[in-house]
Amino acid sequence: MKSKNNLLYSIGVDLGGTNIKAAICRSDGKIFRVLSLPTEADRGPAHVVAQIHSAIERLLSKKNFLAPITGIGVGAPGSIDHEKGLVLHPPNLPGWKKVKLAQELSKRWNLRVNIENDANAAALGEAYFGSGKNRAHFIAITIGTGIGSGIILDGNIFHGEKGFAGELGHISIDYNGPKCNCGKRGCIEAYVGNSYLIAKALDERSSHPDSLLNRKAFGKTQRAANREMSVRDISLAAKRGDVFATHVLYRAGEYLGMALGNAAVLLDVTTFIIGGGIAAAGKPLFDGINASIRRNVIKPMRARIEILPAQLGNNAGVLGAASLFF
Amino acid sequence: MKSKNNLLYSIGVDLGGTNIKAAICRSDGKIFRVLSLPTEADRGPAHVVAQIHSAIERLLSKKNFLAPITGIGVGAPGSIDHEKGLVLHPPNLPGWKKVKLAQELSKRWNLRVNIENDANAAALGEAYFGSGKNRAHFIAITIGTGIGSGIILDGNIFHGEKGFAGELGHISIDYNGPKCNCGKRGCIEAYVGNSYLIAKALDERSSHPDSLLNRKAFGKTQRAANREMSVRDISLAAKRGDVFATHVLYRAGEYLGMALGNAAVLLDVTTFIIGGGIAAAGKPLFDGINASIRRNVIKPMRARIEILPAQLGNNAGVLGAASLFF
Repeated sequence: MKSKNNLLYSIGVDLGGTNIKAAICRSDGKIFRVLSLPTEADRGPAHVVAQIHSAIERLLSKKNFLAPITGIGVGAPGSIDHEKGLVLHPPNLPGWKKVKLAQELSKRWNLRVNIENDANAAALGEAYFGSGKNRAHFIAITIGTGIGSGIILDGNIFHGEKGFAGELGHISIDYNGPKCNCGKRGCIEAYVGNSYLIAKALDERSSHPDSLLNRKAFGKTQRAANREMSVRDISLAAKRGDVFATHVLYRAGEYLGMALGNAAVLLDVTTFIIGGGIAAAGKPLFDGINASIRRNVIKPMRARIEILPAQLGNNAGVLGAASLFF
Repeated sequence: MKSKNNLLYSIGVDLGGTNIKAAICRSDGKIFRVLSLPTEADRGPAHVVAQIHSAIERLLSKKNFLAPITGIGVGAPGSIDHEKGLVLHPPNLPGWKKVKLAQELSKRWNLRVNIENDANAAALGEAYFGSGKNRAHFIAITIGTGIGSGIILDGNIFHGEKGFAGELGHISIDYNGPKCNCGKRGCIEAYVGNSYLIAKALDERSSHPDSLLNRKAFGKTQRAANREMSVRDISLAAKRGDVFATHVLYRAGEYLGMALGNAAVLLDVTTFIIGGGIAAAGKPLFDGINASIRRNVIKPMRARIEILPAQLGNNAGVLGAASLFF
């Protein structure tokens, strides 16, 4: 990353299953322009690529943009073939088997293009501009439907053999535990992934008749009305002091702390940055993680453990993708 | 490592709780001279250092050794301060809190000295001269009283923040599992570490009256006579077709495969090299690991998994330590 006197500009694209977010970012972490378009993934790969083109076009044409753009960085779901710039089998983009995204974008925009897995892009964003600044090693975890993570070792993303490193959601904490979508038992995703967490809370709430979570459409969000309960409802209830909701989040933190403890003893990496859905719930989740991970690492690591909230929120993806050119 | 035409020689020392093994090694992996002295750890750090000096002296004086020695590499138990060349709190060397081993050795021998954790040294040995050749990433696991491991990423030992990386024995496979010496529950060490494995087998053998393991001092080894049962007895019985002994080893492999599955999903590292005590038992253990790890990784990793026996046996430590100067 260059000094303030020599600021660079690049485009960061965060390709999600629902929205495409794109931004012109500066190498000091400032987001210069940002916009969001629907992915419309059901219309197939060619349409999604056209949507990305359209997002970039709007960014650049908004008014004359004079500074040179050093490249386009993309955070995409699924597995990435870094050499060839391919996006392979993203789980939430139907019809994408093997898309030559780097080639498509570089041809159209005559710019260098670099693609990174979305969890890794978010970790890079935190590494450059967020909670990971000044830390050589950390793991950035995003809690959502799945649990993704990006592993930063010696300041760089660690990809592993074929780019699948960071599948922290599939660390098992109990070989006899509940079955995960992946086929394995006891994966941490099967305890704290959004849908599992909500299913468990729905199952248990009748034993807690006083809980706000028994009121239909609590929080009056659209999602709550549609789906009985959302992660946001649980957070909101906990913030209002609801004991059951607080317990659900604390327990999720405890489970997560067990998986993070396994990662810590293996790698002697003791900084974990937590973002995504239930991370916004704050204290109960973080208290649970902190208590549990300290019980689940070897003694010389205990005092060094730090569990930090992600700082960049929804912007981690575009900033991290853009940082591929800083 | 230099080419055949430019062979280097260095000294590798493997400092164990019972024996000190030292060797002059050549950069093509040939062990030129080797000897072993008792550590006599109960006589305190100064005596142990004197024993290391004595081992090196005997190596060098055996006959005139003409080729220049490039340095002394040491594999030591405990945590290593690499910058200062300190050995910190090795669990099986009583009285060692902080020993300036590098300084002591370099002063006496006027050679460069490099110290590495013993599990890491064994991993380096396998990386240079054993099962890890031509593999960028792997984890080398040594099964003994404890379960140690050395993690090779991009061809180098990964140390983590403070040198504790590789504590794979404390990956938990069941947060409600048996209590480990470290205080955590369900650590893989508490399933397959020698003493736990033997305790379980002793506990269960009466339900298997036909098993050879019910015969006192089976295998007629000293250890068997002294302690009722040794890991070697279990291996030996399995080799003779004993069903119960075979089951004990297969099950140990299954447990280990669960922990290795957790490491694999986190790092996308799919090569594991297994050495130490029960690894010598061969097929039943490896069959158990292979079956279990494939059930415990995500699908895209499954076909790439390889579980390899360590090739260098007891020489991995001295060769890996010596390789710090190749």
